[in-house]
Amino acid sequence: MTLAIGVIGTGAIGQDHIRRLSQTLSGARVVAVHDINPLQAEAAVKQYQLAASVHDSGQALIRDPAVEAVLVTSWGPSHEEFVLDAIAAGKPVFCEKPLAVSAAGCMRIIQAERGHGKRLVQVGFMRPYDAGYRALKQVLQEGRIGAPLMLHCAHRNPSVGEGYTTPMAITDTLIHELDVLRWLLDEDYVSAQVVFPRKSSHTLPQLADPQIVLLETRSGVRIDVEIFVNCQYGYDIQCQIVGETGIASLPEPASVPLRSAASYSTAILTDWKQRFIAAYDVELQAFIDGVQAGSLTGPSAWDGYAAAVAADACVLAQQNGTVVDISMPPRPDFY
Amino acid sequence: MTLAIGVIGTGAIGQDHIRRLSQTLSGARVVAVHDINPLQAEAAVKQYQLAASVHDSGQALIRDPAVEAVLVTSWGPSHEEFVLDAIAAGKPVFCEKPLAVSAAGCMRIIQAERGHGKRLVQVGFMRPYDAGYRALKQVLQEGRIGAPLMLHCAHRNPSVGEGYTTPMAITDTLIHELDVLRWLLDEDYVSAQVVFPRKSSHTLPQLADPQIVLLETRSGVRIDVEIFVNCQYGYDIQCQIVGETGIASLPEPASVPLRSAASYSTAILTDWKQRFIAAYDVELQAFIDGVQAGSLTGPSAWDGYAAAVAADACVLAQQNGTVVDISMPPRPDFY
Amino acid sequence: MTLAIGVIGTGAIGQDHIRRLSQTLSGARVVAVHDINPLQAEAAVKQYQLAASVHDSGQALIRDPAVEAVLVTSWGPSHEEFVLDAIAAGKPVFCEKPLAVSAAGCMRIIQAERGHGKRLVQVGFMRPYDAGYRALKQVLQEGRIGAPLMLHCAHRNPSVGEGYTTPMAITDTLIHELDVLRWLLDEDYVSAQVVFPRKSSHTLPQLADPQIVLLETRSGVRIDVEIFVNCQYGYDIQCQIVGETGIASLPEPASVPLRSAASYSTAILTDWKQRFIAAYDVELQAFIDGVQAGSLTGPSAWDGYAAAVAADACVLAQQNGTVVDISMPPRPDFY
Amino acid sequence: MTLAIGVIGTGAIGQDHIRRLSQTLSGARVVAVHDINPLQAEAAVKQYQLAASVHDSGQALIRDPAVEAVLVTSWGPSHEEFVLDAIAAGKPVFCEKPLAVSAAGCMRIIQAERGHGKRLVQVGFMRPYDAGYRALKQVLQEGRIGAPLMLHCAHRNPSVGEGYTTPMAITDTLIHELDVLRWLLDEDYVSAQVVFPRKSSHTLPQLADPQIVLLETRSGVRIDVEIFVNCQYGYDIQCQIVGETGIASLPEPASVPLRSAASYSTAILTDWKQRFIAAYDVELQAFIDGVQAGSLTGPSAWDGYAAAVAADACVLAQQNGTVVDISMPPRPDFY
Repeated sequence: MTLAIGVIGTGAIGQDHIRRLSQTLSGARVVAVHDINPLQAEAAVKQYQLAASVHDSGQALIRDPAVEAVLVTSWGPSHEEFVLDAIAAGKPVFCEKPLAVSAAGCMRIIQAERGHGKRLVQVGFMRPYDAGYRALKQVLQEGRIGAPLMLHCAHRNPSVGEGYTTPMAITDTLIHELDVLRWLLDEDYVSAQVVFPRKSSHTLPQLADPQIVLLETRSGVRIDVEIFVNCQYGYDIQCQIVGETGIASLPEPASVPLRSAASYSTAILTDWKQRFIAAYDVELQAFIDGVQAGSLTGPSAWDGYAAAVAADACVLAQQNGTVVDISMPPRPDFY
Repeated sequence: MTLAIGVIGTGAIGQDHIRRLSQTLSGARVVAVHDINPLQAEAAVKQYQLAASVHDSGQALIRDPAVEAVLVTSWGPSHEEFVLDAIAAGKPVFCEKPLAVSAAGCMRIIQAERGHGKRLVQVGFMRPYDAGYRALKQVLQEGRIGAPLMLHCAHRNPSVGEGYTTPMAITDTLIHELDVLRWLLDEDYVSAQVVFPRKSSHTLPQLADPQIVLLETRSGVRIDVEIFVNCQYGYDIQCQIVGETGIASLPEPASVPLRSAASYSTAILTDWKQRFIAAYDVELQAFIDGVQAGSLTGPSAWDGYAAAVAADACVLAQQNGTVVDISMPPRPDFY
Repeated sequence: MTLAIGVIGTGAIGQDHIRRLSQTLSGARVVAVHDINPLQAEAAVKQYQLAASVHDSGQALIRDPAVEAVLVTSWGPSHEEFVLDAIAAGKPVFCEKPLAVSAAGCMRIIQAERGHGKRLVQVGFMRPYDAGYRALKQVLQEGRIGAPLMLHCAHRNPSVGEGYTTPMAITDTLIHELDVLRWLLDEDYVSAQVVFPRKSSHTLPQLADPQIVLLETRSGVRIDVEIFVNCQYGYDIQCQIVGETGIASLPEPASVPLRSAASYSTAILTDWKQRFIAAYDVELQAFIDGVQAGSLTGPSAWDGYAAAVAADACVLAQQNGTVVDISMPPRPDFY
Repeated sequence: MTLAIGVIGTGAIGQDHIRRLSQTLSGARVVAVHDINPLQAEAAVKQYQLAASVHDSGQALIRDPAVEAVLVTSWGPSHEEFVLDAIAAGKPVFCEKPLAVSAAGCMRIIQAERGHGKRLVQVGFMRPYDAGYRALKQVLQEGRIGAPLMLHCAHRNPSVGEGYTTPMAITDTLIHELDVLRWLLDEDYVSAQVVFPRKSSHTLPQLADPQIVLLETRSGVRIDVEIFVNCQYGYDIQCQIVGETGIASLPEPASVPLRSAASYSTAILTDWKQRFIAAYDVELQAFIDGVQAGSLTGPSAWDGYAAAVAADACVLAQQNGTVVDISMPPRPDFY
């Protein structure tokens, strides 16, 4: 049967997931929605022609017996509470990043989930579902480049708004690398350092841009990630693994090769929403399939916690200019 | 509501479409199946856990009131009859290629569909749904390379079985180019010529391989298509449009760039099934969405007819070594 | 000792070779010059600070005992006479293309050279000295793509002047492919056909542009060469060899890969003089070294004849629209 | 007239330069040689058919009135003395790297040269003569990527011999980047840091491999250079400049693109001698032309000193694990 899903938060990302569930993915339907703005919730029901009830609160939605699983796509600071409620109700919950606004919040979710005795939470890190990253991990796992020694990465945006601050380079931007590189290497970070290159003249005064984050993993792999959010030229995600016998890179998004005006070129995306558009479909289908099969396999609360711990260390490293230790407890067998 | 689909033919391609409808696509379910081998039909029901009846004949399936739309994935020579039956029943029908084994058969379907007064048929040409070809067509339509003058194409397979014959290079292999290039340029062919290069030593005695087909369109665009079905190295589809001011090419399938063993490389596919795997999803979703919206937009019976007419001319050109005229009537307003 | 060279014709190409001999290459010096315009000859002596005599005629220059070898870079129709004179004087001669304006003229040179008993003539076909073509031939010779079956080539210019005519697509443009492809495959052509695609709107009224020339070699290799001399976007030379087990292509000229303005690009040359600039150096050094070593190895009078015979057939094929036989006698042991 | 050159040191690199001067370059000839092993010096004279005297000592060669310019290609520790002798004799000298084995030695040469009143020394850093680096610098200078902010570089060798030690990663390998990146950016370094990733299992016990060197320039440009001298897969030099509006990369060496065995590939060099082979020609021709024109323009003694100062700091950074300041005095007007 199709999975009956309640959606908390019908903003941009919430609506996008509603569209996916209604028009693209297999095996689920939206039966309930809630938004802090009731008019927006009702508008979403209308736009996507949902046979769905509109709830006064996230709590009410979670308690609704018609709701079998919950999507949390509300404002970040509200995530922790809704996820804890869903766990309390014993209902599977897909929560957009961040799982909680602090590592401590993530840990509270972990405790609750472990208390329940079974995984209920999937965090909305979509990059592990991207076909490129999956192909990259496969090359690594097949031993085609030997053991990994170094990663050279970049996360570039054409530009960011006025509200974007130096720590957000970690918490909003690097957070995706913190998740996906850990998944790629299957090990935790032990230290972080941040260096600040000469600042781009295209950056606002309050923002240090670009930045380079240097990470070290438990086995000694060294990672450098360039974060450059006013690079002007495009939205560009790079990831290169240097192994003992070879080097593998994240594939570039496919594009029509063009010979024109004395140039041989392919297009670079400028809108981040296009870059991982297929991965969003795959991640949400995986949640549906996981719930149906009784076993979630995607990014867990533990993964959300690990990203939060690493991000905290990176922000500290931004501030004090030294190498900061990252202290992650071993992964419990539960995860 | 979900579209209730009956599937005639549960062989490899039929099962693949059943899997799509059940596990991947949105808005449809399989409610009836038939196969000339009833055990295979029942096996498919079991394997995909379908709530579907098994019919003794395609005709019975088509008449079943529970069936709202029909998929014809049976043996090629049976297609015409089932499609005509579906039209007679006023039910939308998705038919795998070929629509009919002769141009005359395609024309009979066209007559029936026009008699019905509304499009009911979508032919299973999937390449117009491939993201690469669509991007290529967009570049062309945006005027980024000017008017098209020449197309250089290739269709290469690593190898083919013993049963593959010289005319099959047209009817089984080139047929995809005949469809997609006509769609890309939005015009019909007026002539065909075939030249036979030196034969590969990796080819069986009865088969001329490679072959080069030269086509001309109504506006004078010249197309060369290399067909090389024992090329050994991979399944490789190339399409390059030379326009008045630039050149655009079909993107290569994404692959992890690798530096290893003194070589910088990306993988080339060897299995044709992988090449357009996403396009099959899109084409079938388009059929579902089209039926739901009351308006089919994909490859029509007229497109199936056009491909058949062009293929007939190419086979004749193989035999007599000269330039053969291709005579297509103008497209009726109906299509 | 350095080779004493006399240069007949001090136009653009003549001056370029004088510069090479004086400033770049090893083992030669210019000791005599002649031009139909004596002022231009004197200007060249001055500009390149040559210790060289200026002769009234090419004949006088050839007879000058101080001249050990001759460069013929004069007007095309005068080539044959000067080459014959050099042979008569027993002096090695490097002659820019064309060796003669007709196949018959080339044959007269062959007769004279064979009468002399030893190779004295090198024709200025520079592509066999291009590092890219040499690497391509090496891949072929190492058997890395198996026996060659097809060649897909293109010769594109951004634009041509008003004086450029349809036959010049063969005699001025294709002539380079006629030489280098024969060298690449080490075999002669047996037939030619020309097809005319829809004409580019950027082409002058009297010119058919683009054109596609289809060649067949003795062993059955099929070659298609797109000639497009008003392609707008650049000077672009393509050559792809399809072999029994793989495909090898001419490398693109090196260029700085750039990520900028939503585009990942490399530059395409627009000036033909840049494309084979290094090959001109190598070809002329080979002539100097060959003369010094007593044995010329570069493009011979026979190669000049072969190109002329093939070009004649292609021009005929342009005119009558059919497949034209190319009749080359077997290569004499002398060459 | 041709420049009369004396060569001190007829080992591998010395012989290679003798070959260049005799057979490839324009405007010079070898008139004298010396080697610590007289038999080797005589063998070189014989092999390259030189009209050259063989001297008992480098000093004698330098004093020989027939010698107009000196090439120092002897053992590294002897360079300083020979260069000082050449300066004392007022003769232009091309010295292979290192100019001297210490920064202090380089400074003594600078003092002597300034005392002479005119540039006499060119150091054998060839990368600024590489066409790829020159094209990269041109892109930068044309403002096509805005002001440079970061450089991501790599210097990889397939493997190194047993004698290769951790500091040699700086003094033998990174030394080329220290020179060429400073030339590329046209500014000095202010600090260095070295981090040691997990060690490759293909590396000998005494060697830390790979290493990452982090440099900062006066204007704040941040540079990371991966040094990996047992990378197995090839000799691979990477250089990417991230500017304010775009990114430019060093072109890959040209290679035949190949489709074969399910792979689309180009070759990566494995022999470092092939990588900059053309640059050696250009650098030595520049020395000849510079001497003839009375004005040397290539890498100066000051550049040799700057590389030595930076290398010293990097070796210190290897040892103490911290960020080490690099203290370069301002460039004197003399250079």
